[in-house]
Amino acid sequence: MGKYAIGLDYGTLSVRALLVDIHTGEEVATSIYEYPHGVMEEHIPSGKKLAPGWALQDPQDYLEGLILTVRNVMAQTKILPEEVIGIGVDFTSSTVISVKKDKTPLCHLEEFREEPHAYVKLWKHHGAEEEALLIDKIAKERGESWLPLYGGKVSSEWMIPKVLETLRHAPEVYEAADRMMEALDWIIWEMTDVETRSACGAGYKAFYRHDSGYPDNEFFKALDPRMEHFIEEKMDAPIKSIGEKAGHLCESMARQLGLLPGTPVGTGIIDAHASLPGCGIGKPGEMMIIVGTSSCHMMLSETEAGIAGVGGLVKDGIMPGYFGYEAGQCCVGDHFAWFVDNCVPESYHQEARVRGISVHQLLTERLKGYRAGQSGLLALDWFNGVRSPLMDFNLNGLIMGMNLLTKPEEIYLSLIEATAYGTRMIIEQFENAGVEVNSLVLSGGIPVKNHMLVQVYADICKKEIRIGGSSQASALGAAILGIAAASPKITGYQNASEIAEKIGQVQEEVFSPNPDNTDVYDALYEEYKTLHHYFGTGGNDVMKRLNKIREERKG
Amino acid sequence: MGKYAIGLDYGTLSVRALLVDIHTGEEVATSIYEYPHGVMEEHIPSGKKLAPGWALQDPQDYLEGLILTVRNVMAQTKILPEEVIGIGVDFTSSTVISVKKDKTPLCHLEEFREEPHAYVKLWKHHGAEEEALLIDKIAKERGESWLPLYGGKVSSEWMIPKVLETLRHAPEVYEAADRMMEALDWIIWEMTDVETRSACGAGYKAFYRHDSGYPDNEFFKALDPRMEHFIEEKMDAPIKSIGEKAGHLCESMARQLGLLPGTPVGTGIIDAHASLPGCGIGKPGEMMIIVGTSSCHMMLSETEAGIAGVGGLVKDGIMPGYFGYEAGQCCVGDHFAWFVDNCVPESYHQEARVRGISVHQLLTERLKGYRAGQSGLLALDWFNGVRSPLMDFNLNGLIMGMNLLTKPEEIYLSLIEATAYGTRMIIEQFENAGVEVNSLVLSGGIPVKNHMLVQVYADICKKEIRIGGSSQASALGAAILGIAAASPKITGYQNASEIAEKIGQVQEEVFSPNPDNTDVYDALYEEYKTLHHYFGTGGNDVMKRLNKIREERKG
Repeated sequence: MGKYAIGLDYGTLSVRALLVDIHTGEEVATSIYEYPHGVMEEHIPSGKKLAPGWALQDPQDYLEGLILTVRNVMAQTKILPEEVIGIGVDFTSSTVISVKKDKTPLCHLEEFREEPHAYVKLWKHHGAEEEALLIDKIAKERGESWLPLYGGKVSSEWMIPKVLETLRHAPEVYEAADRMMEALDWIIWEMTDVETRSACGAGYKAFYRHDSGYPDNEFFKALDPRMEHFIEEKMDAPIKSIGEKAGHLCESMARQLGLLPGTPVGTGIIDAHASLPGCGIGKPGEMMIIVGTSSCHMMLSETEAGIAGVGGLVKDGIMPGYFGYEAGQCCVGDHFAWFVDNCVPESYHQEARVRGISVHQLLTERLKGYRAGQSGLLALDWFNGVRSPLMDFNLNGLIMGMNLLTKPEEIYLSLIEATAYGTRMIIEQFENAGVEVNSLVLSGGIPVKNHMLVQVYADICKKEIRIGGSSQASALGAAILGIAAASPKITGYQNASEIAEKIGQVQEEVFSPNPDNTDVYDALYEEYKTLHHYFGTGGNDVMKRLNKIREERKG
Repeated sequence: MGKYAIGLDYGTLSVRALLVDIHTGEEVATSIYEYPHGVMEEHIPSGKKLAPGWALQDPQDYLEGLILTVRNVMAQTKILPEEVIGIGVDFTSSTVISVKKDKTPLCHLEEFREEPHAYVKLWKHHGAEEEALLIDKIAKERGESWLPLYGGKVSSEWMIPKVLETLRHAPEVYEAADRMMEALDWIIWEMTDVETRSACGAGYKAFYRHDSGYPDNEFFKALDPRMEHFIEEKMDAPIKSIGEKAGHLCESMARQLGLLPGTPVGTGIIDAHASLPGCGIGKPGEMMIIVGTSSCHMMLSETEAGIAGVGGLVKDGIMPGYFGYEAGQCCVGDHFAWFVDNCVPESYHQEARVRGISVHQLLTERLKGYRAGQSGLLALDWFNGVRSPLMDFNLNGLIMGMNLLTKPEEIYLSLIEATAYGTRMIIEQFENAGVEVNSLVLSGGIPVKNHMLVQVYADICKKEIRIGGSSQASALGAAILGIAAASPKITGYQNASEIAEKIGQVQEEVFSPNPDNTDVYDALYEEYKTLHHYFGTGGNDVMKRLNKIREERKG
């Protein structure tokens, strides 16, 4: 009899189940279910229109995906239900659901079918900008001690702004909601029939601190008097550390999944954070960077320190026993894609087509042999605003140094370099706060496909870099937390860190800084910092003024 | 019997003859001759290679073109030789030729066929960069009084750097040259058999001042002791004002052209400057802007004032009795072309092709209804460095304010706007120096084809704009100076200004500033100025450092 765990990875558009051998890490089977409702950005199922920036989901998709993908991975193999010794879950966050005591989502009640606020507010729902500003203001006025640990600025993507938005715009939904929670916690509640809160979700997205708990009632009252007892009324439930067991599979869910009741279910983790164990990081020293449309930087540390613009710092939030730090860049793959869609000439597209390669590959190929500084270009990677360290979304991109010989691939490189300078800035914030960064692991599709980018990151950040080894690192990380939920007697592992280091996956190749480039990049990084300070911290607020004019003139 | 004049327009690639009715301005016939040798940039006819940046011509092309085009316009019509009452000439400049006493170009002597320095150095020959720096340095050390009137910086495209380059690199050519001169003056010498110098060429390109003459011998000696007597030895000849007669057609040339000996020939003018009379500008108040790959700004004024970065100020240099000012922008059509070639996506090219329009037209069409500021973008038009007002070619382009929704046409607009901000900056330099600019005339292919650009210029510069009326404005201007060379008794005109105002051509349509845009553009212009000062005048010399690194790293 073998021993296996299932990792469930709830992404933005789909959920994936991954069945893993707990000792070899072998990925035995996988299954994906695309949410039928997808991301609702224009209207809800009834046809009712949504304002720009909204992003909702239907939680029925989560339940159906759970059942279908788990049944599918089991069906693909001859593995018996009793061989599955644990289940772990990761989920997008802060993805907020409002439900009744019996777990029923409000959007499934007849009375709220027409009410957008009753649906799941996906992480990238941006309807709560005003509420984020208000919370930020009040937290600053009150000197809330948690604020510096959240990078000093409240994001509209977090949980409390989304809840306050519901209260202010649909008070009847707020009123009717017995519980408001991360969809992550809700799905685990559905699986175990025990309501808990993950330290990861609570810590990164809902102002929960391991030492002081949630902000006090006075704070919530200041946001809105009706919210004074929000925590007791709608949130309070046992906080579970990452690596702990959240509960056991309940009878009805076990029946639906075709697994054994009582199977341990691990505490849920945010999807990005799951890739740390998935890439084999169980201890401090190595920074994990998920390079996607945006980038997310994560670190474990024994030290607790407020770092400007680092969006989260949570004890036991990523790995048990460590502080988990999270920083981010808003625009990485996103602006490479923007560039390829908008700024690459016809001949490049034609050549790529004829040769059967992507335009990204063609651009990368043309940069072969390029040396740092050769393009003469410098860019700011602010096309989507700045998360770390400025936490300012009212900023935009910049490219400079062009002359009439400047080629598209050089601009492309300058955008890649800009994201690497931004990463170096984040690394330096960590190091200045006493959190050592020895090396990097880059994960996600971009570093796997684009080794040139990885080398640029090595040269600019002056760190050795390895690439994540699994194409489904988050799902693997979730499975690792499923293993950690089971008894050490069964698994033979003492804790999650040990499992991560054993079966988390990272590629063998090491990208080392190229000494021909590092000095030049040091100089260019200084130029980047100067522009960063000039345009980002009040030297010249031209970007904010341009944005204001842009908004006014759109008509 | 009618009265006609011929204008000869010597451009970079061809010469055009235009036969004009002196009273109606009707363009009766035109003929173009493309230089068989074109621009020699890679090698001379013998096959000998040229260094990058070189640009030579063979003067035989000028002579052949003169004879063939004049004969051709006469042949197209029934106009008799005696009906041609004057001939005028414009020419690229500073286009420098070295010749013997008998006018023979040195490059036509057997002994110099292999010597590149013996050929005509075309205006855009950039072999004299070092010499320009040296002359600039020496002029500054000596406090030469003319330097401020040349914008405070010597350009390698001017005459003296090209002469010094010849002296330093081919002293035997310098030694053998009895005369060194503008090709403009040489062709008129060929036509009239009288050697003169145009006040326009001498004033704009050879440091000649109406009040103090050329720089003194000490200055030339400081450049190189062998050059001490350069003016007496190779340059000295009567200086002729624009609007004056340079001489009369000599017997042999009259025979070759099929015209009457004794036909008055006007003083030659630089091609760009010829478009002022060609566009009907004979008096102060109206600024002429030739919008091409680069832009050239010209003004007449009764006031003499040194204006920073204004590249030339010459009495009688454009119209008799006025000071002629000249400023410029290095990169206008050039960076629109760069953008279309490098940064416009495939779908735009496809759509333009299907619809049978140019990509420029498509981009312009997509900007219909755009309001100032709506794109949120701001650019610096420095892709080729900056002529006026900074006279600094060690600067580069910049585009800022992009987000992920930024469209190609918005970037295109930002580049157009940038050139308009640059023009407004030049206008303000003039106005601050007491030279009034009441309205603008835009000439060249770009404003004729792109009225959107003209409107942007009107909105940003807050001036009424008209577009030049003739597609051959320089040739028409040359013809006007041909008329001016004839006796008032024959023409009925008192002076060149009067002729220009009578038969110079400008389109009727007036582009007035759009009040919906002017305030916003005022604000954006302030932002442009702030960036201009920050990146251009020492606030942050990052562009110069990027260029330095670029050069070092090209390997």
